[in-house]
Amino acid sequence: MADWKSKAREHVSEVNALIPKEWLIPGTIPSADDQRDVTGYIRQFLTAREIDITEVDAASIVANIASGAWKAKEVTEAFCHRAALAHQLVHCLHEIFFEAAIADAERLDDYFEKKGKTLGPLHGLPVSLKDQFHVKGVESTMGYVGWLGTFQGKKDTGKDKVFESEMVRELRELGAVLYVKTSLPQTLISGETFNNFIGYTNNPHNRHLAAGGSSGGEGALIALRGSPVGFGTDIAGSVRMPASANGIYTIKPSANRLPISDLATSMDGQNTIMASIGPLATSIPAMRLVFRSLLAAKPWLYDPQVVELPYRDELELETRELAKGQLVFGIMEHDGVVTPHPPVARAIEIVRSAIEKLGHKAVKWSPPAHIRAVEILVNALQYDGGLDVHNSFSLSGERVYPQIKGLYGEKPKDTQWTASEIAANNVRSREYQKEYLDYWNSTATITGTGRPVDAWILPAAPFTAARPGRYDYYGYTMIANVVDYTTAVIPVTVADKDVDVKNATYQAFNDIDRKVWDSYDAEIYHGAPVAVQIVGRRFEEEKILVLAEILDKAIGKTEV
Amino acid sequence: MADWKSKAREHVSEVNALIPKEWLIPGTIPSADDQRDVTGYIRQFLTAREIDITEVDAASIVANIASGAWKAKEVTEAFCHRAALAHQLVHCLHEIFFEAAIADAERLDDYFEKKGKTLGPLHGLPVSLKDQFHVKGVESTMGYVGWLGTFQGKKDTGKDKVFESEMVRELRELGAVLYVKTSLPQTLISGETFNNFIGYTNNPHNRHLAAGGSSGGEGALIALRGSPVGFGTDIAGSVRMPASANGIYTIKPSANRLPISDLATSMDGQNTIMASIGPLATSIPAMRLVFRSLLAAKPWLYDPQVVELPYRDELELETRELAKGQLVFGIMEHDGVVTPHPPVARAIEIVRSAIEKLGHKAVKWSPPAHIRAVEILVNALQYDGGLDVHNSFSLSGERVYPQIKGLYGEKPKDTQWTASEIAANNVRSREYQKEYLDYWNSTATITGTGRPVDAWILPAAPFTAARPGRYDYYGYTMIANVVDYTTAVIPVTVADKDVDVKNATYQAFNDIDRKVWDSYDAEIYHGAPVAVQIVGRRFEEEKILVLAEILDKAIGKTEV
Repeated sequence: MADWKSKAREHVSEVNALIPKEWLIPGTIPSADDQRDVTGYIRQFLTAREIDITEVDAASIVANIASGAWKAKEVTEAFCHRAALAHQLVHCLHEIFFEAAIADAERLDDYFEKKGKTLGPLHGLPVSLKDQFHVKGVESTMGYVGWLGTFQGKKDTGKDKVFESEMVRELRELGAVLYVKTSLPQTLISGETFNNFIGYTNNPHNRHLAAGGSSGGEGALIALRGSPVGFGTDIAGSVRMPASANGIYTIKPSANRLPISDLATSMDGQNTIMASIGPLATSIPAMRLVFRSLLAAKPWLYDPQVVELPYRDELELETRELAKGQLVFGIMEHDGVVTPHPPVARAIEIVRSAIEKLGHKAVKWSPPAHIRAVEILVNALQYDGGLDVHNSFSLSGERVYPQIKGLYGEKPKDTQWTASEIAANNVRSREYQKEYLDYWNSTATITGTGRPVDAWILPAAPFTAARPGRYDYYGYTMIANVVDYTTAVIPVTVADKDVDVKNATYQAFNDIDRKVWDSYDAEIYHGAPVAVQIVGRRFEEEKILVLAEILDKAIGKTEV
Repeated sequence: MADWKSKAREHVSEVNALIPKEWLIPGTIPSADDQRDVTGYIRQFLTAREIDITEVDAASIVANIASGAWKAKEVTEAFCHRAALAHQLVHCLHEIFFEAAIADAERLDDYFEKKGKTLGPLHGLPVSLKDQFHVKGVESTMGYVGWLGTFQGKKDTGKDKVFESEMVRELRELGAVLYVKTSLPQTLISGETFNNFIGYTNNPHNRHLAAGGSSGGEGALIALRGSPVGFGTDIAGSVRMPASANGIYTIKPSANRLPISDLATSMDGQNTIMASIGPLATSIPAMRLVFRSLLAAKPWLYDPQVVELPYRDELELETRELAKGQLVFGIMEHDGVVTPHPPVARAIEIVRSAIEKLGHKAVKWSPPAHIRAVEILVNALQYDGGLDVHNSFSLSGERVYPQIKGLYGEKPKDTQWTASEIAANNVRSREYQKEYLDYWNSTATITGTGRPVDAWILPAAPFTAARPGRYDYYGYTMIANVVDYTTAVIPVTVADKDVDVKNATYQAFNDIDRKVWDSYDAEIYHGAPVAVQIVGRRFEEEKILVLAEILDKAIGKTEV
């Protein structure tokens, strides 16, 4: 057995050994054919009390602990148990540190008992973290076998298993309990989640499909209620693709609203497109809770990249006021490059009708061609010709998954982008942003409110969750990274093989469109969640959370 | 005569022909030996009324116009006249558009008369602009002969002499009157101001010395009161060096606080170090006026790079409150690389004693070595091996000044920085910023206030104004660009040959230090202005304007 295989296997064994024996699922896990959806299936291994605790949202959890109704310890144990089960069903964890979490929870309970108050706004809340965060006591492999026993691939830094990322420090200070790090794809650059440790993270709603990526472990874990809220990063859709695929919520803030420094990443220092850090959760209030709490910790005093923008209650209130009158949403049914599959097209229409039922207005969104943004972003990911990711692969000689070979080849390219070429791409990006902003402003002439469009809606992807190996188009999420707009994802419906049939009049825009269209199979996709994105201007997180909440509630009503 | 020479000469003739004959200085301009300081000398060519108008600050000007006491037209004419005289004395203008300015002023007067109110907060205020701004009707050469008749070196874009930069649009909307574009050095990358149009911009306080750069024309023009306020850009000190050299005020905001998009620049798309746009003025209230007015125009809705941070009155007020108690300032006498000349060292002591007289506290500022920041910034300016600037030179084949050859050679380098090398420099920059922030936070343990240091002080340069061809060290200004801190410059004193004698115990840190030290000559520098920088955290412009005001007033008192 190749050295990397045994190293990977050894690490996986060590991690899995941290699951208490009584939490192991007895017998064989049923196949995807036998048990497609495991979101309900998981309940049989939990007590009624554990189900009660794990099936409310983060806002309710902290309220129950703060009122003294629940103890941090029992909450932590319940989520540890459910996360362990989730991992056995869909392979969503990289690192497990239940013991440290339970000890932290006990300390929080002691604090609460002694002081009669909580440590902070997240007191006792279990929070899961994508395996880019550094947490003391555990590895940060980011899915690379060669990173075992190192700090981001470097030996003898004195930092591995000791150093913690800035946001980890803040989360602890706010009272959160950290207990798992979740799976992601090799290199981070994929809408699926796979690596030589966990293999493949499946979609818990439909195990024939992908859990999305790169924050796929977060998506799957939260969908299974193994975590009430977690954090991922997003440079091309990496919190939005998994939220969408797994039927949960997320918000991708504008870059540098939340502290991303000190996280492991790929191609660190590429700064044409800046990644964002954002929460994934089972409700919108849960996202507001963590977002607001983190900003209250003044991250700009500790991460030099974070912009000094506290949570703006006034923007939240102003948006609620605005919503009492008529709002105008732009709607983009498709981006002119790849046609959304039938369930996705239906989700857009559900949202449109919810908007109209509320008395708000939907107008067509016809911005500068998104394909230009896709090119700018793909360029940025290619600057170094794959040198950085191949350096990490070569530390162990591990297998490179075909999805990654498609983007970065078998080895690094001989030449890299030059400074002048990179600068030209930066200028293109800035000019595109400006054109987009001008377009947005120009909608003031068609809304009838005197204001430009308040927010706009587009599919989260052309498919619901993707079929393994077939995440062939990222344009629907990439756009928001290029223009750096705040973007929320809300679940809308699920694919229904009887309703979502292929439109016979379909005509392909191009070869990729045809390829993506051909991947639709009503039978295979049946039951997969479908979401939309709600996009606001840069740094309008407070506003977009309100608008997402309004649409989320309205969709619920139309569904009934 | 070479083609570029005749083109340059022709353009200069056309520009100078726009100066009314009656505004030409009769006879010969006296030599620097005969008339070192022309700041008072210029008055003889002005009426008493013109002197009254041009020697108050921008805040008083708009107040006088808004009250109806002054007309926009007479204010504009007075500044046009004085700017024309200034240009004849120190060569500080690239473009003149007095006629358009006077027509604009007349329209403003009409508006005021008809509506009984001002158009905006800058109604009737003449504002000068560095020749990176695009203004309709005039060239934007940025000092390149080859850019004549083009848009940033490109032909047939349809934009030249038509397109206006975003901030120009906003200034007009706020009621400002635009009338001149000011000189800058070829490439922008110099602390002196020279090019094949204007030759050299001299320091009006001491024409043996440089006016600074790259916003040297702004510095000289404002020192001569040919403008009450103007705008420059700063990527390594380009508003601070000229403000310091010319005895005026400036603030370099953090990047992307004010809209810089659509300005001509060098190496556009280099985004390791982002340039800032900032005002230069004859008072701090003048800077606050334009800063606040521009933010009221919500530039983030028009420039996608601008952060959504309105002017924060609460931060201004909070700082004023804080100042009623004890403030603590860090003081950095030197950066350990280059020793400040005697007048500069004396200026620091004047500020220290002002701080202490006010009952505030001064502590030693000992941050991470500034030389590391200097290296990061110099790297960023070298990424393309000079290709961009040499492309602009080669459009005309014009003479490249020796100061530029020192940095960019006779021709572009054969190789550029690779994507990986640039990414590594970006990571170094981010890590340095983080270390600096950690250091700043750590000062909470020594201030005695429980807070970290409120702001810190350092020289604006090792010299007062530099001697031509001898601007040999930029470290004192570069630091604030690397950490992206808000930095104000306030004038403190003037060099005095009887007081500012070389310290006999001087020991060189290194060869550059020796070279800079050797350039000090008490006789030559006599009368040159000396300034200090006051540095705040990122985006703390409101706070730093208050602290600068407090120190500025206190220095005045100690000077009396």
